[in-house]
Amino acid sequence: MKLIRFGAVGSEQPGVQLEDGTIIDVSAFGTDYNEEFFGNDGIGKLKAWLKDNQDSCPTVADDVRLGVPLTRPSKIVCVGLNYAQHAAEAGMDIPKEPVLFFKSTTALVGPNDDVIIPKNSEKSDWEVELAIVIGKKASYVEEADAFDHIAGYVLHNDVSERAFQIEKSGQWCKGKGCDTFAPVGPFIATTDEIKDPNNLNLWLKINGEMMQNSSTSDFIFNVQHVVSHISQFMTLLPGDIISTGTPFGVGLGLTPPTYLKPGDVMELGIEGLGVSKQSVKAYKK
Amino acid sequence: MKLIRFGAVGSEQPGVQLEDGTIIDVSAFGTDYNEEFFGNDGIGKLKAWLKDNQDSCPTVADDVRLGVPLTRPSKIVCVGLNYAQHAAEAGMDIPKEPVLFFKSTTALVGPNDDVIIPKNSEKSDWEVELAIVIGKKASYVEEADAFDHIAGYVLHNDVSERAFQIEKSGQWCKGKGCDTFAPVGPFIATTDEIKDPNNLNLWLKINGEMMQNSSTSDFIFNVQHVVSHISQFMTLLPGDIISTGTPFGVGLGLTPPTYLKPGDVMELGIEGLGVSKQSVKAYKK
Repeated sequence: MKLIRFGAVGSEQPGVQLEDGTIIDVSAFGTDYNEEFFGNDGIGKLKAWLKDNQDSCPTVADDVRLGVPLTRPSKIVCVGLNYAQHAAEAGMDIPKEPVLFFKSTTALVGPNDDVIIPKNSEKSDWEVELAIVIGKKASYVEEADAFDHIAGYVLHNDVSERAFQIEKSGQWCKGKGCDTFAPVGPFIATTDEIKDPNNLNLWLKINGEMMQNSSTSDFIFNVQHVVSHISQFMTLLPGDIISTGTPFGVGLGLTPPTYLKPGDVMELGIEGLGVSKQSVKAYKK
Repeated sequence: MKLIRFGAVGSEQPGVQLEDGTIIDVSAFGTDYNEEFFGNDGIGKLKAWLKDNQDSCPTVADDVRLGVPLTRPSKIVCVGLNYAQHAAEAGMDIPKEPVLFFKSTTALVGPNDDVIIPKNSEKSDWEVELAIVIGKKASYVEEADAFDHIAGYVLHNDVSERAFQIEKSGQWCKGKGCDTFAPVGPFIATTDEIKDPNNLNLWLKINGEMMQNSSTSDFIFNVQHVVSHISQFMTLLPGDIISTGTPFGVGLGLTPPTYLKPGDVMELGIEGLGVSKQSVKAYKK
């Protein structure tokens, strides 16, 4: 099943994207895609509900705005430097264990919303990533059990301001949590749709030119390792997002380094998780 | 006004602590202390409502459990190394601008709840901190306007696992976001109660022995600077927590370094913000 949310910013409704691409409004099911939904087998219940009710669900126009396909999570945990070639282009060592950082949840935007270059930014950069949506509370989870705690997968552009991230005092969060820096979607694919999350092609184009084109089979730490590892340090809640890192090909790694400018268009995709597209705009008050 | 929340974990009710220390139940006011409350002058409305309704609010027993005095915020942003003597004891340089990191919101516990030493931890440490509660959305706020965006102040113990924070790959979040690592409370003091947040005594005792005893007048970056600075990198939402850093006297800085062990009792306080007390326990499944 493909979970989407549609409508104006702040008043999104839950929907489902059918096999043929049609979007149906499932707000009559009665709950949004939130912590309670993921934590109480909302996916199973929605699937069962659709068997009886799908025909009475209104169809949504193709050109509807898509929102983030879940409500605000308690956290977005990201893995840094999880592809060897990307660690090299960033001038960093291959980590011995997953490097973790948080992305502010206020950075979340819909998959096709604009990305706004922050004030005083000169080094805003792109990062296509496979993100995991947690389906069951996870604390001290073994790798062997990690998949039991996953509800689905979703496409994420982990937009990053390199000067804020690396050249400013201290931790990466200044360059990772800027508003609009987390376009997520178009849809959450439930786990039954993704045969092997550790073997998916992922790519990103800037203005039509392919910049990143790799596979999650190049992960240093795979999906089950990452979930288990994070759960050693904090409890993951249903609906939490884990973003698994970006492959080679970001702007920082180009010669010379090349960053986003107003007017640029980012287009990205992951096998089985659809495509998103963001226009880059300058900040205006 | 002093805002508290009381009751069992997960079913806390909003209350107010009166001048004489009595706690009254204000759940009849109709809203919890959440983003909507702080963002829509809930403090002003509650104050007005109490004028007519205080006498009919039930009194709460003195020994009631106190919860975190607000609902889950979108984020907890922390300032690192914000006191010169603490930067020195941590072996780090005095930062040129505020060092920021996030603390997981799943770390939040009530002010007198137990602090659990995580599995595989040997270096869990204490940090008394003044925390700010945001009262109005803040994006690109000038220092001169920063106080307009603050709802109140609260006591926070920024418990930190030093090996997870410093000796593991990457960012600090592994040692900052462990479950129970953010005891917050007893109460949020609204801004009218705190004459000058940049001049408050703060202290922390371990098993009755004074370990930290300083003043927020020793801040490298004061409250208004910190709020303005963070708002350059992300939007702060009503109810978000900013923790302003800890002064000299943490376990990491002792000779030899000394860390928390099961059975220890932490007691901490800030002038005008009350006292909290946590027992330290080992992790048990």
